[in-house]
Formats: sequence, structure tokens, C-alpha cells
Amino acid sequence: MIDLNADLGEGFGRWHLTDDEQLLSVVTSANVACGFHAGDPVTMRRVCELAAERGVRIGAQVSYRDLAGFGRRAMEVPPDELTAEVAYQIGALDVFARAAGTRVSYVKPHGALYNRVVHDAEQARAVIDGVLLADKGLPVLGLPGSRLLELAEGAGLPAVPEAFADRAYTEEGTLVPRGQEGALVTDPEAVVARSVTLARAGVVASHSGTPLAIHARSLCVHGDTPGAVDLARRVRERLEASGVRVEAFT
Amino acid sequence: MIDLNADLGEGFGRWHLTDDEQLLSVVTSANVACGFHAGDPVTMRRVCELAAERGVRIGAQVSYRDLAGFGRRAMEVPPDELTAEVAYQIGALDVFARAAGTRVSYVKPHGALYNRVVHDAEQARAVIDGVLLADKGLPVLGLPGSRLLELAEGAGLPAVPEAFADRAYTEEGTLVPRGQEGALVTDPEAVVARSVTLARAGVVASHSGTPLAIHARSLCVHGDTPGAVDLARRVRERLEASGVRVEAFT
Amino acid sequence: MIDLNADLGEGFGRWHLTDDEQLLSVVTSANVACGFHAGDPVTMRRVCELAAERGVRIGAQVSYRDLAGFGRRAMEVPPDELTAEVAYQIGALDVFARAAGTRVSYVKPHGALYNRVVHDAEQARAVIDGVLLADKGLPVLGLPGSRLLELAEGAGLPAVPEAFADRAYTEEGTLVPRGQEGALVTDPEAVVARSVTLARAGVVASHSGTPLAIHARSLCVHGDTPGAVDLARRVRERLEASGVRVEAFT
Amino acid sequence: MIDLNADLGEGFGRWHLTDDEQLLSVVTSANVACGFHAGDPVTMRRVCELAAERGVRIGAQVSYRDLAGFGRRAMEVPPDELTAEVAYQIGALDVFARAAGTRVSYVKPHGALYNRVVHDAEQARAVIDGVLLADKGLPVLGLPGSRLLELAEGAGLPAVPEAFADRAYTEEGTLVPRGQEGALVTDPEAVVARSVTLARAGVVASHSGTPLAIHARSLCVHGDTPGAVDLARRVRERLEASGVRVEAFT
Repeated sequence: MIDLNADLGEGFGRWHLTDDEQLLSVVTSANVACGFHAGDPVTMRRVCELAAERGVRIGAQVSYRDLAGFGRRAMEVPPDELTAEVAYQIGALDVFARAAGTRVSYVKPHGALYNRVVHDAEQARAVIDGVLLADKGLPVLGLPGSRLLELAEGAGLPAVPEAFADRAYTEEGTLVPRGQEGALVTDPEAVVARSVTLARAGVVASHSGTPLAIHARSLCVHGDTPGAVDLARRVRERLEASGVRVEAFT
Repeated sequence: MIDLNADLGEGFGRWHLTDDEQLLSVVTSANVACGFHAGDPVTMRRVCELAAERGVRIGAQVSYRDLAGFGRRAMEVPPDELTAEVAYQIGALDVFARAAGTRVSYVKPHGALYNRVVHDAEQARAVIDGVLLADKGLPVLGLPGSRLLELAEGAGLPAVPEAFADRAYTEEGTLVPRGQEGALVTDPEAVVARSVTLARAGVVASHSGTPLAIHARSLCVHGDTPGAVDLARRVRERLEASGVRVEAFT
Repeated sequence: MIDLNADLGEGFGRWHLTDDEQLLSVVTSANVACGFHAGDPVTMRRVCELAAERGVRIGAQVSYRDLAGFGRRAMEVPPDELTAEVAYQIGALDVFARAAGTRVSYVKPHGALYNRVVHDAEQARAVIDGVLLADKGLPVLGLPGSRLLELAEGAGLPAVPEAFADRAYTEEGTLVPRGQEGALVTDPEAVVARSVTLARAGVVASHSGTPLAIHARSLCVHGDTPGAVDLARRVRERLEASGVRVEAFT
Repeated sequence: MIDLNADLGEGFGRWHLTDDEQLLSVVTSANVACGFHAGDPVTMRRVCELAAERGVRIGAQVSYRDLAGFGRRAMEVPPDELTAEVAYQIGALDVFARAAGTRVSYVKPHGALYNRVVHDAEQARAVIDGVLLADKGLPVLGLPGSRLLELAEGAGLPAVPEAFADRAYTEEGTLVPRGQEGALVTDPEAVVARSVTLARAGVVASHSGTPLAIHARSLCVHGDTPGAVDLARRVRERLEASGVRVEAFT
């Protein structure tokens, strides 16, 4: 059994990026942008309505406040500011989730913040504090072994480790940074095969070929590039064909 | 019995405007800025905590998205955008109100939006729809006779009319626009006296001297100018000395 | 002889809208977004470099400050603010135009501001004042008969009237507002034919069929929809085939 | 002979921070905020007009794009983005400087960017590239020994080292970070005395008492706290009384 998550609602006003409708027919968990790196209120509302209709779980994809950089530029945000900014984003999204008859059911940091809280305990702690402000039982999605998940568990929040079938891993189980050669797995068949091995065996080959144990409860698929939705659909079909139940984590 | 409300948390990051701590010792309802014309998450959190401590009711002061213009520039926002923007702001504030042990208990539009929904039925309807998305029982503060309050009542939301002791009124009971001569009542004693007459008799003299019947359940006091907090305090003392109970509306 | 202009650089950070490279091989004047409705500094720089390379004239496409609404929401901006905002945008673009060996050579308002200054003398005056702050000889592009062009001429600025082959016109020679039925001419062959008649005869059929005299020195083509670049290219080819020289206005 | 510089125009719309009028009667160089950490176009215009009237030199105080954090949060901005953002800010300010009959005459980074480019060669290089895009002869203000000034010189830009009489220095001649104990020299008389020693002898006592040689051509005074303008005035008076000519650097 595995969850499939994707980033959704990553447009802003006139600009669109993700094919929200199509992705919502593939994934079981939707990481919805909350306005800080992307995500205008009209889109947030519509994605929540569609997700609720299709039984897709809604998560808050929280970010640094950086529309110009799409949340991909790491920032030295003082902990009290980061905590309040995280809570603000969760609350803003929750109003649309509730109006659609459901609620924000998990939190996943976006972009540079996601990468930062793998190692940075201060920012990870600030994110967890923001989640706690919003809801003392909200699951947190992140990289296995990250400070974020450690601190989530310490704070009594469900920690949900995730894996990426289309990203290369270092020997240490972290992601090869975007921009480095080979950071992305671009062969669709390889992505599909890695997804199945991750879901069934909890194993993925590192950049250099060593098998890594990755105990993920969710797989992240991408939807912001041409062909990405088709690939996500193939991943889901192959998972199901190989006996894996695709279902939102609980 | 009358409620006293004031705008709070109207700074942004490094910039401060309202003396939140002092005002919270005077008013019974706090219109908290939600980030669209003013109001950063750290300030929103702090104001909610202080308000909750002191038993001051928290309201969402919703605005057009216009930090550069402080929400004072009217905008032709399509209804679906305005609705979603209003709900977004309420949700963002509510996370801090709930974390402080209370919740957003009313909504009051700010600045140009406040003035616009006196007459503009389309925008008033859009604001009400945003309030309904967030909470189907949330009271709405506004000008007596405004389209906003009419539509609030039609939608089953409690409509709370308010008055301004420091603003001049036209014969029709609307506010003389800022910028026109005599728009502001600047003599402190006059403001205090008008407050008492408004609260006790439901009457205020118009710009030209005619007595107007204004059935207000809340009085708005201002806190963003030097001496304003002292004046608010005097208003409250005189109201209480003249037998008016100062209490949050219910 | 006619000029062809198009809006360029209308992305923001991660988001892209216009196919800048392709459009720059078709048009003779580029209306470059300056950061207020769209247009990040990296894109502004790149568009200026490409335009300079290809001999395309660079214009500042100035807008209300409204990224969330893409400058399509009319705003009541006080004249001194609008004036300063217009000058700010021109200056910001000019740095990239000059670095590319050329300079900002005209100004064209965008979206809601474009429509507003057709009739609103106060905002038109404020825009002209902003242009004058930046450069006392800068041409201004706009609708024939608009207050903007009248005031530009009055202020000694070259006024350049433009026409739209893909927009329907009212009997009065203004554009049928987007959103109204028939506002856009969608048949490519009709757009091409209208372009030729506009350029050669200075005539276009109104919404109801009446011929209107439109003395335009520039034709605006669009580049933000699929197929739009191809259409723009066909317009240019047909104009040239019918003996019209396509060249930047002087 | 020494220059006195201060940060000006650091409000935004409704919010004010620096007492621009008073400071302009004290300093010889004005670091004007350009809209990224503070600084709206109306204020930029007004400060440029006042500075030009009084013969105060205008500099562009360039910053990370971070209104919410007042430019005090370090950001990992890719070099091409930082370069373009720096040039954008210089161009935007220059339009107002030119309209006032002068021009932007130097560049000084603000806040977190100022501190970052002391050591970070990549960001320092990106800032210098932005300055070069705008003007190949523009002086750059910064900390003596900083990578910024080194790279400015390497690029043929005049490098202007500055000192702070109200900030504590480490043994290495860098500033003790804000937030650390003793980072600010708060005794007005000490600030005045340090100013004179810096200007006359090029010496300041470090945090631990060791005398440091600081060859500064400009002294930075602050204007954003109560009493700061008075202190700046005393610094200027004492400098002049001790025979130092206070004059813009050349």
C-alpha cells in the first residue's frame, strides 16, 4: 500500500503551471500551494473543491514567502516568523478545505524550505511549531531521516516519509540537488520501475548504483512538465498492476 | 450597552502603525489586519494572543490585496476573486485566534472595500459569499443601511451596524469622504460627546447640523494617530460614567 | 507603412506566458512588462537583449501594481501615486534597454489602465506626468481618440494611435470589452483580412458592421495564446504581400 | 574630509520609518530605498527632489526582494537573478534622480545583502554585475576589506569604504552582528567621539579594546530610531568643530 502525492495549484492569477484536474484523477494526496510561492485564493478554492469531490486528501504545501523565486531560494527566516508564516498558510488553505467539506490533512514544505529542513534543526523546529499552532495532530510529509520528521515525531505529530521515483539519491539517502548532472531520472520506464521497487521492496538504487533502503509511505510524482501527468498515470497503473494498493496514508 | 471596535495589527514586518497593546486595554472588539493591506503573521499571532488574554473579541479586517496603497484604493475585483480573497484572510487569521483559545468572531471590511460595499451590491455580495465560505454564522460589521449589512441579513448572518464618533456624516447617513473639508471631527471633547449621544440616544448631528438617527451596536475608535489611544480611553470612560455598559456585541 | 506591436515578457519568475523569442521575430515594437502586472528583472533583461539584437523597438508596458490580477483590475490610484509608479516602471526597464545598447522608446499602458485612460482624464494626466518625469520626448501608444493620446499631444509627447485586428469595435470606435460576446475576433483569416484593411485603408468594420475610420500607426498582435504567434506571423506576411511596409513607427 | 551617509526613504506606502527631511539636513549622501525592502515610488521621488535641492548625493540602496522581512533575511538568490534585481532597482531610482536634475551617484547594498557580500564572492560578483549593467562608473559603498569592494575595484568601479561609529567591531574589522550583546554603541557621547577618531585618525577600538585601522571615506549614521537624527547632527557638528570637512566623497 502506498500514497501518491503531487504539488497542485502552483499557478498565480493569470499564470498556470500544474494540470490540476488531470493530476487529481491520479494522486491520492494533493499538496496545495498556499499563496507564498504560488497559489491564489481562487485556485486554492477550486483545487479543494475538486479534491474533495474525488476523495483526494488535501495537504498544505507551505513555503518561504517568495513569489518571485517560486520558493526555491533558501532564506534565513527567524524562527518566530517562519512559525507564524507556516500557520498562516495552513489556516488560509483550511478555510477552502472546510468549505469543500473536508480539511487540511497534512503539511509538506515546498522547495528550498523542504531541502533546508532536512538538516537545519532550527528551521525544522519552526515549521513544526507552525504546524502545532494550526493543529496538534496534523501529519507532516518529508524526507526519511530528515530533522523535520524527527522533530515531528518528537512533537507527537505523525511523520510520513516519502520517496521520489524521478530524483536521483546520494549514498546518504538525500536527493541529488537539482542542477547537478543526473539529478533527475528522465527515462519514463526507469521512473515507473523505481516506483514499483520503492513501493514493494522499500529500495531504490543510489546515484552510484548502491541499493538504499527507503521506507516511504508516500511517493511524490510531478505534474508541472509536459508528459508528467501521463507518467504519473503510468506509475499508478503499474503500481496497481503489481499488486500495490494506491491509497492515501492514514 | 455598546461595543467599542478599533483597527489593530496594521503594521507590516518592520513597520508599525497601531499601538496594539494600549488599544487592547480600551476596546472590546479588535479588527485585526489579515495581511492584504497590512498585518504580518507574527503581528497577527501576537495581537490574537493579547486579545484572547484580555477577553477582547477578534474580528477579521478584510481588505483588497494592496499593501502599497494600504487598502485605500478601490479596485474592480471580479466577484469570485473577492470572495476567495475574503475567505483566505479569515482563514489565515482564524488559525491564530484558535491557537489563542478563541476564534474569529466577526468580519469587517477595511478602507476602500468598506466604502465600496456601502453601495456596490456586487462587491457586497462577493464579501458575504466569502464570509459564508468561512463560517455560516459569522457576524458582519458595517455602516447602517449599507448593501453589505442588507445582504448579510438576507444570507442569515448577524448584521452589526456601527457608528463613528470622529467622522462627519452626510444628510443621508453616510460618511463624509476623507479628504473633504470637515471629514474628521478633530476636537476631542466633541468626539467624546458624540460618542455618548450615539450610544445613549442613537443620534448624531450631520455635517450640516441635522440630527440623524443611527442605531449602532458598535462604535469605531481609531488608534493610528498620536493621541488617539488617549482619546479612545476618554470615550470609554465617559460612556461608562454616563451609564453605558461597554461590552462586545453578541 | 505600419508598426506591429505585441506584449512581451509577461511571465513572472517560474511562470511564463508569452513566447518572447518567436514574437521578437515578428513584431517591430515590443511592449515589455515592467514588474507591476508581470515581468521579472531576469526576463526584462533577456527580452531587451533579444529585442536589441533584432532591431525591435522597446516600449515600457506600464501597469497598475497588481500581480495577483495581472493588471486587469481597475484601481482608484491617486494621481501622484500613479505618476510615480509609471516613472518607476519606465526607469526599471530603461536600465536593461540601455545595457543592451538601446533605450525605452515608447510607453503603452497595460490592461485595466489602458482601458481606464481612454476616458478618465485624471488617470490619463497622471500617466502622462509619469512619462514626462522619465523623458520629455517619449512617444505614447494608445487608442485613437483616447484622453491619453489627447493629453500626450498637449504635453508635447508624440501620440501613436494603434488598432487591434483581433478585437471587435463599438460604433464609437472603442473596444468591445473582454467578456462580452463577440469581443474577440477568433477566425484567423478574418484577423488577417482586418489587419490589411486597417493598414491600407485605415478602416475596420464595427461590431454591427458599420465601417469605422481608424487611423492607426501601429497594429497590436497578441502572443499569449496557442497559435497566436503563427497568426501574428501570417498577419505580417499578408501585410507585406499586400504592399504594406512593416516597420517601427518613428 | 569625510562623507556622512544614511538610509532614507525606508517607508512603504502608509508606513514611515526614517525622518527623511531632517536627515537630509545632516548627511552628504542619501542611501535611498528602491522598493525591494522598502521605498515606494512617491517617497523615492520626494526624497530625490529634496536631496537634489540640498545638494545631497543620491545612492541606490539595493536589497533582496523582501518587504516582509525588510531585507534583513539572507537569501540564496542565483547570481543572474541578483544581478538583474540590482540593476532594476538602480534604474527605478535613477528616473527620479534624473527628474530632479541629478542622478544615482553610488550604490550601497542593504541589510542582509550588505552582510552577505562581505564574504560571499558569488553574490558580491552578482551585485557588481548589476551595477555594471546600470553604469560602468558607479561608485560602490561597503565594508573595508569586503569581497564587494575588492570586486568593485577589480571591475573598475570606485570602491568607497565606510565605517560605523555606532556599531561594535570584531578584531577582524567586521561588524559584531545585530542581536549579539554589545553590537550597538548606545552612548551618544561614545558615538560622537568614535566618529571623530574614525574621521581624523582612521582608527576605532574593537569590541575588546584593540585599536583597529579603518580607512573609511564615509561614515554611516542612522536615522530610524528616536533621537537618531539629533545624534547624527551632533556627530556632524563635532566633526566640523574638530576640523574635519564633511563633504560627499568624490
